[in-house]
Amino acid sequence: MGPRLALVAGEPAGVGPELCVRLAQQPRQDSRLEVFADPDTLRAAAEALSLPLRLLDPGAAAEKPGDIALRAVPNAVPSRFGTPDPSNARAVIDALTAAADGCLRGGYDGLVTGPVHKATINAGGIAYTGTTELLAERAGREVVMMLANDIVRVALATTHLPLRAVADAIGREGLKTTLRIVHAALRNDFGIESPRIAVLGLNPHAGEAGHLGREEIETIAPAMAELAAEGLSLIGPLPADTAFLPAKLAGFDAVLAMYHDQGLPVLKYSGFERAVNLTLGLPYPRVAVDHGTALDLAGSGRADPSSLFAAVETCARIAARRAR
Amino acid sequence: MGPRLALVAGEPAGVGPELCVRLAQQPRQDSRLEVFADPDTLRAAAEALSLPLRLLDPGAAAEKPGDIALRAVPNAVPSRFGTPDPSNARAVIDALTAAADGCLRGGYDGLVTGPVHKATINAGGIAYTGTTELLAERAGREVVMMLANDIVRVALATTHLPLRAVADAIGREGLKTTLRIVHAALRNDFGIESPRIAVLGLNPHAGEAGHLGREEIETIAPAMAELAAEGLSLIGPLPADTAFLPAKLAGFDAVLAMYHDQGLPVLKYSGFERAVNLTLGLPYPRVAVDHGTALDLAGSGRADPSSLFAAVETCARIAARRAR
Repeated sequence: MGPRLALVAGEPAGVGPELCVRLAQQPRQDSRLEVFADPDTLRAAAEALSLPLRLLDPGAAAEKPGDIALRAVPNAVPSRFGTPDPSNARAVIDALTAAADGCLRGGYDGLVTGPVHKATINAGGIAYTGTTELLAERAGREVVMMLANDIVRVALATTHLPLRAVADAIGREGLKTTLRIVHAALRNDFGIESPRIAVLGLNPHAGEAGHLGREEIETIAPAMAELAAEGLSLIGPLPADTAFLPAKLAGFDAVLAMYHDQGLPVLKYSGFERAVNLTLGLPYPRVAVDHGTALDLAGSGRADPSSLFAAVETCARIAARRAR
Repeated sequence: MGPRLALVAGEPAGVGPELCVRLAQQPRQDSRLEVFADPDTLRAAAEALSLPLRLLDPGAAAEKPGDIALRAVPNAVPSRFGTPDPSNARAVIDALTAAADGCLRGGYDGLVTGPVHKATINAGGIAYTGTTELLAERAGREVVMMLANDIVRVALATTHLPLRAVADAIGREGLKTTLRIVHAALRNDFGIESPRIAVLGLNPHAGEAGHLGREEIETIAPAMAELAAEGLSLIGPLPADTAFLPAKLAGFDAVLAMYHDQGLPVLKYSGFERAVNLTLGLPYPRVAVDHGTALDLAGSGRADPSSLFAAVETCARIAARRAR
């Protein structure tokens, strides 16, 4: 039967609903899905893509292409593909929190989320900085964002900060917490017994022995030394420009980048379609698509479903591993 | 006969000398090279690699494999592969400045440089931040560093700065100067009549409409608007993580990154071996290898010569284009 996963469709005007409908066209061996979404939006997506759809009760088993076990979270107003409506922001957030709480209660073994539209949620009067942050707060945990594809796993020491705020946001204790979370996830969720984590420097050339900044000497290397004493296998601080050379990547199980634009360009260049976004450190596995709402594609059937497929596969694999 | 190029071997204890010897094993149609180096070091490199070498007078034509027209710049002390000696720092810098001055006087049509070892030069009592900076000062020009391979060209708005200094170093006038230099080089040196330049944002998600930083709104976009009025074709400010997606890169002739670690990881990941480092804005073309002295490989013959070969080819092509 496989683990039970909660799948949140995300912004109803985006590509999330149609990707859920496409996902439902194939039988799954790895997991049982329950979709959190507005039923009418799923029906509209299926119609737009000329695909079969049958909405079943929560917990029901899918029997044929198009079957979806649904936790209905109704929109406040009908949604139109390509045009997010702030009136539906509450429904988007309600779906996320209901699914997250279901995971926390043990009703699901993992959470997969489609894309949401941050500006629309904020326009709907809801303070929201990101789903990762929302889930962390709800679980009362410190978490780490990791992006992964078939080539590389990149964890981030800081995420959505203005560049000028990054240097001051990197602290020794925070780095230690982050690296411990990444290490534990590589062991427990990815089954890597002795994970090797490359740690990037903050500055170009990893500070070049202090000539281009002292954070490597004063913050990053000391944090790494303390963790090495705990048994973590860490390499660095490494210059970011050469750490991603394919021959070097082969020696690492993950790369910890100090900030967003240092770590993600190679990840996305090397395999955007199959990339997924993981939240490490929660009591349950959470995997998200690594793309946005793609409003211009919504309803057209042209959105690439690879990232959602990869997200479900990844979440199912981790959930199964945790259940052993 | 092709353009005349000055080739500086660089740090005598590194792989530069042996790469020059390897370069001399093939006949060249595209250019006539003169090597600036210590003669004994070249002889030692040829011996270590069991390759033929004949040192000719400056200006002499190479006739057979191993022929090198040499501008001798003698070391102060004999060099040993793998162990840079600060006593030779002066000779390293003298070779660079002699070659640069030769280019400025019109004695050469372009400059190719091998790797130098910054720490050793500084240990030799010479203030040196980088060859690009040295050449800019000597020519009295503002320059731009561009890294290029067969996949992408990346120009940098800032180069070797601590990360915390980057945001304040990005100004509207500086960006305009940089983009004008890149635009002119793409036209004149690369023969692209109407170059399209992608301009990255400074902040993650290019600031997300001001939520993650305001430099895009206050500095970058205004600079771009002024240049668009001059006829430059600029795209952005773009989020750095998705600007390098292969499908997007296909629409750009170059990418302007705001800082080192934002622009260079993808460049190096996508083709390190053939990558070269160009200095745009000088009165002559200058192309450098995109690797360091590789002290651990010096004398072994195992260093990959692809970057030096690509640097000479690129410099010869640009010099020939400028001579038309």
